[in-house]
Amino acid sequence: MSNQPSHLERFASVVRLRAEHREEYLKLHAEVWPEVCAAITAANISNYSIFLHEDLLIGYYEYLGDDHAVDMATLAADPATQRWWALTDPCQERVVGTPDGEQWAPAPEVWHLHP
Amino acid sequence: MSNQPSHLERFASVVRLRAEHREEYLKLHAEVWPEVCAAITAANISNYSIFLHEDLLIGYYEYLGDDHAVDMATLAADPATQRWWALTDPCQERVVGTPDGEQWAPAPEVWHLHP
Repeated sequence: MSNQPSHLERFASVVRLRAEHREEYLKLHAEVWPEVCAAITAANISNYSIFLHEDLLIGYYEYLGDDHAVDMATLAADPATQRWWALTDPCQERVVGTPDGEQWAPAPEVWHLHP
Repeated sequence: MSNQPSHLERFASVVRLRAEHREEYLKLHAEVWPEVCAAITAANISNYSIFLHEDLLIGYYEYLGDDHAVDMATLAADPATQRWWALTDPCQERVVGTPDGEQWAPAPEVWHLHP
């Protein structure tokens, strides 16, 4: 485990929303299960939003932990999260550039406002 | 002018990055002009990042003002911002769903984490 102090990292990623599951996905996200939100928060993730342009879902969140990979693995092992993804993954289609074993493709940050 | 108290709004939007201008765009964003950053901040925008997936630029920012349209118009009238956009707009290609007169297409928020 790192002894470095945590610093905030911003993550964005994308995945396609299948047209035939669009309404289902939006309905699910109108009332995300509290236990799913709790697991996300426990993974040191905050300020998480999902946006939609045409058929492209865009995720944005901020991470303030020591080890993003470990926290993501913990989140992926959470039973409620697994039940949630069993509903949401079929609504999505992975895009070009998505790493093996992942659902969302990373969009690296190219700039951040520093006033 | 509204008498309602300001509340934070999150905005995401997308635009294509032209392959032949990719390096130029990234180089510009490695050192965005201070006066451009100051104009963005003066427009009540904060936590602004630009991400890149393949050839898709994704913008995310938070707005804490009284009138987004008025602040965007003020930003668009800023001379430094106009000089900046004269460099960056040719690097970009507007996508389907971009409103007339705008460069970036809005991606409405479909969900936000409320722990």
